[in-house]
Amino acid sequence: MFIQLDFESEIPIYEQLKDEIIIGIAKQQLLPGERLPSVRALASDIGINLHTVNKAYQQLKQEGFLLIHRQRGVVIHPDGAPKADEHYQKKLHTTLRPMIAESMCRDMSKADYLLLVESIYNELQHGGDSNE
Amino acid sequence: MFIQLDFESEIPIYEQLKDEIIIGIAKQQLLPGERLPSVRALASDIGINLHTVNKAYQQLKQEGFLLIHRQRGVVIHPDGAPKADEHYQKKLHTTLRPMIAESMCRDMSKADYLLLVESIYNELQHGGDSNE
Repeated sequence: MFIQLDFESEIPIYEQLKDEIIIGIAKQQLLPGERLPSVRALASDIGINLHTVNKAYQQLKQEGFLLIHRQRGVVIHPDGAPKADEHYQKKLHTTLRPMIAESMCRDMSKADYLLLVESIYNELQHGGDSNE
Repeated sequence: MFIQLDFESEIPIYEQLKDEIIIGIAKQQLLPGERLPSVRALASDIGINLHTVNKAYQQLKQEGFLLIHRQRGVVIHPDGAPKADEHYQKKLHTTLRPMIAESMCRDMSKADYLLLVESIYNELQHGGDSNE
């Protein structure tokens, strides 16, 4: 698994780690049922605190992205992530609304915003990495 | 100014206040040069702490949405918000990427995501309120 963290970023490391795993699942680089490194191994691999990895794993477990077995360890949820239900879509709307309002204030057109979203979808679907 | 805060939300009140002001600007309910209530008046109006209002105003000032004059008080920046430059667009990409990855994991189609973004743009452009 390829994990890219930005230690200069204002985004907490555990959130970046969660994001990287979710991006890996979206790109199908991490497949349902696939094992992830143990908390200890991953922490040592990327040189971060055990608690940071644990926090990311626990939250991803709670959100339904991971299963944590006592014996089999940490695996990508074999059934896939929970579907985008009404609750999720409402939350997404609440998150996107002020973001889009800010872009409008900054004179970003609807067309440009839609293009950006589309390009990210395409990048993730084709497993590329536009973050380079 | 109509400000709607959700005291049950996990989003901090100062962020919600910032969002509401930015949404007001996007909807052109708050116009360039328009005066906002003083920190004290707004805090008392909506029943929140002075420091919470001050934090929101200071951050909006720093981000270029507001001007804070010693005499004229707090006004919506007369020149409008700073434009969506390369730095802003890069930051937006970084924020949207894991959000879109999560939606993909949850089987939300690109078409549905684009529709959602479009509906929010339309709602804000027409000054309606889909938040009801």
